[in-house]
Amino acid sequence: MQFKTRLSKLVNEDVIIRNEKLSSLISAGKFSDSIFLLLSGRKPNPMESILFEKMLISVIDHGMGTTSSMTARFIASGGNSLNVGVGGGILSIGDHHGGAIEKAMLQFYGWGQLGKEKAATLIKEMIAGKKTIYGFGHKVYKDEDPRVLVLLKEMKKLNFKSKHLFLKEEVEKAFQESKGKKLPINIDGFLALLLCDFGFDPLLGKGVFIIGRTPGLVAQTFEELKYEKPVRRVEEEEIEFVKE
Amino acid sequence: MQFKTRLSKLVNEDVIIRNEKLSSLISAGKFSDSIFLLLSGRKPNPMESILFEKMLISVIDHGMGTTSSMTARFIASGGNSLNVGVGGGILSIGDHHGGAIEKAMLQFYGWGQLGKEKAATLIKEMIAGKKTIYGFGHKVYKDEDPRVLVLLKEMKKLNFKSKHLFLKEEVEKAFQESKGKKLPINIDGFLALLLCDFGFDPLLGKGVFIIGRTPGLVAQTFEELKYEKPVRRVEEEEIEFVKE
Amino acid sequence: MQFKTRLSKLVNEDVIIRNEKLSSLISAGKFSDSIFLLLSGRKPNPMESILFEKMLISVIDHGMGTTSSMTARFIASGGNSLNVGVGGGILSIGDHHGGAIEKAMLQFYGWGQLGKEKAATLIKEMIAGKKTIYGFGHKVYKDEDPRVLVLLKEMKKLNFKSKHLFLKEEVEKAFQESKGKKLPINIDGFLALLLCDFGFDPLLGKGVFIIGRTPGLVAQTFEELKYEKPVRRVEEEEIEFVKE
Amino acid sequence: MQFKTRLSKLVNEDVIIRNEKLSSLISAGKFSDSIFLLLSGRKPNPMESILFEKMLISVIDHGMGTTSSMTARFIASGGNSLNVGVGGGILSIGDHHGGAIEKAMLQFYGWGQLGKEKAATLIKEMIAGKKTIYGFGHKVYKDEDPRVLVLLKEMKKLNFKSKHLFLKEEVEKAFQESKGKKLPINIDGFLALLLCDFGFDPLLGKGVFIIGRTPGLVAQTFEELKYEKPVRRVEEEEIEFVKE
Repeated sequence: MQFKTRLSKLVNEDVIIRNEKLSSLISAGKFSDSIFLLLSGRKPNPMESILFEKMLISVIDHGMGTTSSMTARFIASGGNSLNVGVGGGILSIGDHHGGAIEKAMLQFYGWGQLGKEKAATLIKEMIAGKKTIYGFGHKVYKDEDPRVLVLLKEMKKLNFKSKHLFLKEEVEKAFQESKGKKLPINIDGFLALLLCDFGFDPLLGKGVFIIGRTPGLVAQTFEELKYEKPVRRVEEEEIEFVKE
Repeated sequence: MQFKTRLSKLVNEDVIIRNEKLSSLISAGKFSDSIFLLLSGRKPNPMESILFEKMLISVIDHGMGTTSSMTARFIASGGNSLNVGVGGGILSIGDHHGGAIEKAMLQFYGWGQLGKEKAATLIKEMIAGKKTIYGFGHKVYKDEDPRVLVLLKEMKKLNFKSKHLFLKEEVEKAFQESKGKKLPINIDGFLALLLCDFGFDPLLGKGVFIIGRTPGLVAQTFEELKYEKPVRRVEEEEIEFVKE
Repeated sequence: MQFKTRLSKLVNEDVIIRNEKLSSLISAGKFSDSIFLLLSGRKPNPMESILFEKMLISVIDHGMGTTSSMTARFIASGGNSLNVGVGGGILSIGDHHGGAIEKAMLQFYGWGQLGKEKAATLIKEMIAGKKTIYGFGHKVYKDEDPRVLVLLKEMKKLNFKSKHLFLKEEVEKAFQESKGKKLPINIDGFLALLLCDFGFDPLLGKGVFIIGRTPGLVAQTFEELKYEKPVRRVEEEEIEFVKE
Repeated sequence: MQFKTRLSKLVNEDVIIRNEKLSSLISAGKFSDSIFLLLSGRKPNPMESILFEKMLISVIDHGMGTTSSMTARFIASGGNSLNVGVGGGILSIGDHHGGAIEKAMLQFYGWGQLGKEKAATLIKEMIAGKKTIYGFGHKVYKDEDPRVLVLLKEMKKLNFKSKHLFLKEEVEKAFQESKGKKLPINIDGFLALLLCDFGFDPLLGKGVFIIGRTPGLVAQTFEELKYEKPVRRVEEEEIEFVKE
């Protein structure tokens, strides 16, 4: 078996991560900067640093009822330690739960390469043709996703020039014109858009979501272990038997 | 099935996490502070805030060869998406890999309640009686764990008064006197000591390690998916067959 | 890293499993016999062969609502493939869900070594002292666990001499005398008792349960993927927020 | 949340699985028949019953070095219980490890619907056009997969009329003619072919592999826990650092 890596290396008295000493990263002291470096291979610039940290916070937890939180709790309740609950919760973060970020990144990168005009035309055609547009719409937040609003505000405050923000506007405008109602970008879509601005690999889209959500899953699993009785299950009376 | 939580709540246009609005946490903008809040139920004070962030960085990655990195890579190589590799890697963070933090916290909390003198006596007796002491010694770092050194330096710079630091000194002193050699505290032990200073529940010890390491596991899994051929396995020639 | 095994070996044109050719096992054709061999290192005798197979069937599925079935379904619903749901479901089979078999085996082996009289005395003392007795009692089956009844019937039909069955009788008798009501052995306890008769390692107790239940988890995950909409979650209205 | 199932139901004194009483399944006593019933919704006929059981045995274990075995061992070595190792091992059974069965089933069902002549033509075109053919070829078994040979022999002995076997012959013939060498069907392909004969849903292809392999993973994890030292890892000296 071969073992090759470009990520990190144990040397005499330190760990080298992406050409930086771990001890220097600890001294420098920003967790989200170290994450950015580890994932992308370069340090963030000051604006990216501020935005990336806020992006991680924006998905830190979304209530007890989410798919990943419930998975973690079921597993913990079977009589397992914290790592098993948290690891299990992350398993559930699949194509339909956090997975839209990757698809939206591929979409934004693709549109971005077309240039403004061609992208706008394509978006209109896609909406007219009822093609899937990733990263827009939310079950609860019909008007605006509050987490997106805060991030947008910060971008303005920083005067951050996004290369992909116009795509959000084109989609929302085209949808309003075609359907007469709002289709606001959701948090998955907005994270995707900024990660494209940073030049991240689309495959890392889900990774950023996982890193941001892990603290929430630790807290959910911890609460289950500390306060709940073992063996969470659904009672037979709640289950409908379907005859075939 | 009952669903009760004290962690977070979805309200009209926001998420409330431990009595704070998620939008305010994003504006405030420190990921590690939000993690501290979510886990412990309170905001860190300024010194805790600085130290906790550095603690998370100190375990962010420890090379490709660790148990959790290799687990993540084997799983990914079987043909699975990023979340499955990362979730699987976290599964491996069990009693022998990151799990010492919880045990060391229980030990430090226990010793701490005895007061300085009684604790010192007990520690000497334990070393004489060859009882297990958690959080000390390292396979590679025989003299000092470099990650501990940086954290110690930061504590001094901040003039942080640790309630549990004397326990580290007592163990190292007693071991030196009894065995004539060094038994330095390792990173697990040092994280445990600081988490005790912060008043964290011991059950969360492994959780802090998991949160700190997840970025490393995302990077390791991503690298496997992007650069390696499928189906990592150990060749039959490398395996020794044991006759019974 | 060292790789040593006593289980199996790839040779030129076959796999050798516990000194048997895989091709011979396929020809011989009994799946449960191959499982018995792989786990214990020996082939079952004819009575063990019959009973072991029935034991596996007895835990094949226990409804949609179990902890492991629900875990598998939540994970699948997040947008994951079959293996992730099934693997995740098995994670949940912890100390409180299937885990009693191991503890009951340790208990039966321990009692068994005492001989009949001393075991009976100890059991009475344990019940009087309210000590935990593993493998007895069931939330639903207050009188008899129907799966145990069938296995018992088969044992009688076969005239199988169990070395540990008297322990079940001692516990039930002692409980009846002391408390005036029934505490019937449950399926976990009964599997443990028979696995002790077969001489299995207690660590394998949970393993037999996992092997028996995996088909159920495959069916539950398959049904979720085939018939249910993505992203199973608990609605916010069902969750009670606890103020601290 | 809605809970609907067509699989199983807890009633007063029994479990009903696919319209059969669990107690009757235990009495009938064939584990693999119960698996067939649970997965497909019907009992196997006598020939299917014999073949399906042999198919499960054929994948029971394939050495210590497989992706799933190594995953299970890494996880267990981190200090985790049996269920976590086994569950983790199953996670690794992804698109490149056991996953070919599903794809081969889709392929065989597709070809099967074309009728013999059209299928033969399509297969020839696919081989000429270097299209991916699923379920053929093996890294080690260049001539014949020994597990396939035993299954083939049993089919002949039973005089089982396979509706899809001609497709294996067409592929092997076309490949021999076009490339002048053998491309034998592998065990994944052969299981797929028989599962098509039985009318199984392709999504269950990986499920049958998982059920067959779980005993092997239990044995591998058990061996790791019982005989190996904690914290399996790859030493830094074995890892090559790639400069970018």
